[in-house]
Amino acid sequence: MKNNLFDRFKPKENKFFPLLSGMAEVIVTASDLIIECVQVTNHNEAVEYYKKIKDQERKADTIQNQIFEELNQTFITPFDREDINHLSSTMDDVIDLINSCAKRIMLYSPKVMPESAVRLAMFVRESSGFLIQAIGELDVLKKSTSRIKEYCEQLGVIEKKADDVYEHFLIDLFENEKDAIEVIKLKDILHELERATDAAEAVGKIIKTMIVKYS
Amino acid sequence: MKNNLFDRFKPKENKFFPLLSGMAEVIVTASDLIIECVQVTNHNEAVEYYKKIKDQERKADTIQNQIFEELNQTFITPFDREDINHLSSTMDDVIDLINSCAKRIMLYSPKVMPESAVRLAMFVRESSGFLIQAIGELDVLKKSTSRIKEYCEQLGVIEKKADDVYEHFLIDLFENEKDAIEVIKLKDILHELERATDAAEAVGKIIKTMIVKYS
Amino acid sequence: MKNNLFDRFKPKENKFFPLLSGMAEVIVTASDLIIECVQVTNHNEAVEYYKKIKDQERKADTIQNQIFEELNQTFITPFDREDINHLSSTMDDVIDLINSCAKRIMLYSPKVMPESAVRLAMFVRESSGFLIQAIGELDVLKKSTSRIKEYCEQLGVIEKKADDVYEHFLIDLFENEKDAIEVIKLKDILHELERATDAAEAVGKIIKTMIVKYS
Repeated sequence: MKNNLFDRFKPKENKFFPLLSGMAEVIVTASDLIIECVQVTNHNEAVEYYKKIKDQERKADTIQNQIFEELNQTFITPFDREDINHLSSTMDDVIDLINSCAKRIMLYSPKVMPESAVRLAMFVRESSGFLIQAIGELDVLKKSTSRIKEYCEQLGVIEKKADDVYEHFLIDLFENEKDAIEVIKLKDILHELERATDAAEAVGKIIKTMIVKYS
Repeated sequence: MKNNLFDRFKPKENKFFPLLSGMAEVIVTASDLIIECVQVTNHNEAVEYYKKIKDQERKADTIQNQIFEELNQTFITPFDREDINHLSSTMDDVIDLINSCAKRIMLYSPKVMPESAVRLAMFVRESSGFLIQAIGELDVLKKSTSRIKEYCEQLGVIEKKADDVYEHFLIDLFENEKDAIEVIKLKDILHELERATDAAEAVGKIIKTMIVKYS
Repeated sequence: MKNNLFDRFKPKENKFFPLLSGMAEVIVTASDLIIECVQVTNHNEAVEYYKKIKDQERKADTIQNQIFEELNQTFITPFDREDINHLSSTMDDVIDLINSCAKRIMLYSPKVMPESAVRLAMFVRESSGFLIQAIGELDVLKKSTSRIKEYCEQLGVIEKKADDVYEHFLIDLFENEKDAIEVIKLKDILHELERATDAAEAVGKIIKTMIVKYS
């Protein structure tokens, strides 16, 4: 992007909001993929899904770099530079965790994936739905305060539900899986999904702090 | 809470300090409960303690929401909004970890709880004692700088001790517990307590940063 | 250090940059030691290396306290106090993780250390090399922007490589180590090294945010 003076004073909404929304879209796409990925029945399929999710992760990296470049080239930003940076890097955490889950499924080749993995993946997808809505209204933060706050609170609600599913999965695993190595593998894989809902909640908390600061 | 203009200019000390102290009190109560919770001898008792600790966790959530509402409704805050927010959400982490420990004891039903669990719970309680003192003097930060700093440093000292106890517990566990599933369960349960002292230390670091900023 | 008025207005570069560089040097020294530490063949050697690394960790604590004191005693700081604080405490995380790895090797006494441990330790060392260079040019941030950014990006590259080595180590471990307790031990030990490269990357991200803010 050319960094001419005119450009640097261009109406400030033009640049950051579409980039942040692009990031949220990547999370939605990756969430859709991970729901299918946890249901694969052989290693080749797992490899395929991992590749597709990895593509999304790379896309997120590209967007994050663009945001970083924009922050360097723009005089007037809609929010403090640090807040935009913090927001985009925490969104990047969500996608990293989805990617890490897919990678572990491919690498560990667990014998059977439990039903809870699908439920957790669906919570990640549900979170990303609220995320994209919250990000989509950031450009009208003052008008949409109560709605954005509601989306962010839903991220907290989902995180608690995901916690419950993960914990009940663990009880079941401890009771019924006698192979301790298999216990370690599955615990690791599903943990990444539970952490993805944590990261989505963390994005919500950053947005809530921005509400406090800017509205 | 009515948000009239007069209210928004009310002496700024009135609102945030009691809420933050209320949060610290919840941590103290939950710490007292977790000491007993790690010593239960049957599942029913574990359920009882989990319920009591869960009540405290809900209380903390309510207080955190009140703090958030106050930040939105108050023009003049004693510290930057972000700092108050960061402080209350990290205190919330302490209580979440105590709650998560109690939940895991109830859910996993380990065969025997090791003596180290009691010692770790007592470190959590000791941390919460310094926490409530540090928070209690935040409203006179400039006068109490050296004392508050001392409390925060104690949080670091306790965290290191808790680390040691946790690590020696692990060696013992690795040597003497032959059931790997039991190893995973106990490691997980005690880890939450060790992390609770980490979170308390993190609160201390936030307060130390506030000292640097405001005193 | 005497806190007289003249001192507080002394050219601002004098104090923080050498302290931060001192911190980076400690990380380099500890990284050199951990490469040897993961290759010890008996418990006594492990104890020796742990002691040496622990000395470095203590040195880092001392420097961090000096930075904290300086922040309290200096009117004009080259960057915001919070940024300097954040930077030094995240550098401290790197050294804490190296120390924790050495401690676990000593405490757990695993039967055999895998080759991947050496590779991970060398990534930690490589990270610390970029770290010390990035920190070394902070005092000429505006002039060195593109070079510092490059160092920080290298920290991200190394972190991804370390991730890969750690994950392939895990697959191998899951396939070939039949003793689940040994699996838990080695997973824990090598995880600290992988996390050390995460923490080094986090330092890089803080520096990149400072570039956005100050250059």
